Amino acid sequence: MSAAADEAYSGKNVLITGGLGFVGSNLAHRLVDAGAHVLLVDSLIDDYGGNLFNIDDIQDRVRVNIADIRDQHGMNYLVRGQDYIFNLAGQVSHIDSMRDPHTDLDINCRAQLSLLEACRVNNPTVKLVYASTTQIYGAPASLPVTELHLRKPIDVNGINTMAGEGYHILYNNIYGLRACAIRMTRTYGPRMLVRHSRQTALGWFVRQALDDEEITIFDGRQVRDYTYIDDAIEAFMLAGASDAANGEVFNLGGAEPVNLIELVDTLVRAAGSGRYRIVPFPEERRRIDIGDFYADYAKIESALGWRPTIALEDGLSRSTAYYRKHRNQYWSRA
Amino acid sequence: MSAAADEAYSGKNVLITGGLGFVGSNLAHRLVDAGAHVLLVDSLIDDYGGNLFNIDDIQDRVRVNIADIRDQHGMNYLVRGQDYIFNLAGQVSHIDSMRDPHTDLDINCRAQLSLLEACRVNNPTVKLVYASTTQIYGAPASLPVTELHLRKPIDVNGINTMAGEGYHILYNNIYGLRACAIRMTRTYGPRMLVRHSRQTALGWFVRQALDDEEITIFDGRQVRDYTYIDDAIEAFMLAGASDAANGEVFNLGGAEPVNLIELVDTLVRAAGSGRYRIVPFPEERRRIDIGDFYADYAKIESALGWRPTIALEDGLSRSTAYYRKHRNQYWSRA
Repeated sequence: MSAAADEAYSGKNVLITGGLGFVGSNLAHRLVDAGAHVLLVDSLIDDYGGNLFNIDDIQDRVRVNIADIRDQHGMNYLVRGQDYIFNLAGQVSHIDSMRDPHTDLDINCRAQLSLLEACRVNNPTVKLVYASTTQIYGAPASLPVTELHLRKPIDVNGINTMAGEGYHILYNNIYGLRACAIRMTRTYGPRMLVRHSRQTALGWFVRQALDDEEITIFDGRQVRDYTYIDDAIEAFMLAGASDAANGEVFNLGGAEPVNLIELVDTLVRAAGSGRYRIVPFPEERRRIDIGDFYADYAKIESALGWRPTIALEDGLSRSTAYYRKHRNQYWSRA
Repeated sequence: MSAAADEAYSGKNVLITGGLGFVGSNLAHRLVDAGAHVLLVDSLIDDYGGNLFNIDDIQDRVRVNIADIRDQHGMNYLVRGQDYIFNLAGQVSHIDSMRDPHTDLDINCRAQLSLLEACRVNNPTVKLVYASTTQIYGAPASLPVTELHLRKPIDVNGINTMAGEGYHILYNNIYGLRACAIRMTRTYGPRMLVRHSRQTALGWFVRQALDDEEITIFDGRQVRDYTYIDDAIEAFMLAGASDAANGEVFNLGGAEPVNLIELVDTLVRAAGSGRYRIVPFPEERRRIDIGDFYADYAKIESALGWRPTIALEDGLSRSTAYYRKHRNQYWSRA
């Protein structure tokens, strides 16, 4: 952990949208330890990842305001007086974005624009860090994928997230708000959503392993990178604290890319339960598969000194330990 | 004119959104000559470019349906039975997109998504050609700008147009609609909007020259490319007629890049009236200026055989002749 980054937040007002979700709640833990006054805004929409248990152990050290970022009037008020806004609220399910593209648009574009307008009018000196995703690159033309890679999103969610990110950089460049974006790659760890499988495959695998079920993986040779949540949080802390980040987008990455078989094999060993079965790629999944993907994080390493520090095996051990202990807060056994 | 492209449209049903605007109305002229059954949908929103006079000479050869593409129910009906949709409706003023970003979002993202959903459900075999813009590249890192250049839009309009384009390519790739996008560079000619200066500088300059006024240009050394409208229309015709275009985005370009002084000088000579004055760049304009820009059109030349054919001098002569004749249909002299 970087003490230097933490000092920037001591005694400061920090708003986290999506604050009861996976990334938001872990960031809240880090920020309260850094001495920040933390306000968590979350809609607690069913299935979106917000969970009050995620802040169970810090509930007397944060304020919680249940609101939807689409609520423009509410957000107009809530942004005032904040020194930092970590803007993590979003619809992140790729499947849901195809089933209901207009809701994805409302949350990932309209609400982002409203939030930035609220800041421009009511809090123009705030620092914003936006949670973007490496998913916007689509199928890589070259590996590892740098920030200079063309973006060809393969779903509505990717297109809208690209726009949401674009608004943040634009408002930084045009209006002098200070904003940057973190393009997270597959991120995992305690407090991730494991209630259903529509957001992240890995969360669902963790649950299956702990339930001692058989995990079905398609093909298994596809290579990906995975960031442990504490590493991701460190990136948000650094980006928020540094004006060198303003106007920039940064990839995160994982310690080392692994294929899906290696991932699940490591998971099953970490959990001490579960097993897996490899099946051919179903055609409807193959159509939206992007092949191998791992990100180049040299830019954030050079600019902010970030790099992943938690190995996959360690991260999966911590994750399975967390969910074994708190399983009943995250899912009920079938 | 390419007779081969025209044959594809003979006897076919063609819908043009934004059909009373600059590009839409010129395309309508070409399509009725090619024997198409043309339906023009336009909202005739004040200041957006739609003008019934644009189709004055073909009004008995087209059908006009006044509707806003944000009207999801209307569009659900209107897309049915169409063989081709040229999707040209949009908010295209960069200034307006910054003043009212939510309206830009509604038209350039939400309505595009609704139109594609309408096609997916009600007309899944239609061919769509979407009017995009080279403005989405932002400030060029290298010249000429190819389709592989990073996109860094410098305004809300650019971000939303990038999303609108993305939806079309996505629906082509995922749902089997046939769709492609033409990234137009600065396009000029008869029927362009000259009523105000918020959409295109060149339209406004044409008006000033014909009113024998002094045209003020900032700096004047910035190099740009300009496509004459007939050349742009040829690109739309070719892209609609060719399945090789499906899923692709294509830059257009101009015969040869010129700087702003050369442009206005050529214009004043073509008009036989007007004059110009060069002033330093105002700071608020400099902030959003992208420097020199001209596009590489090698991709569409290779794929569809398109290239610009009308020289700037010729195009400006035709443009000034048109507006001299029909001035009172486009603006009233102050």
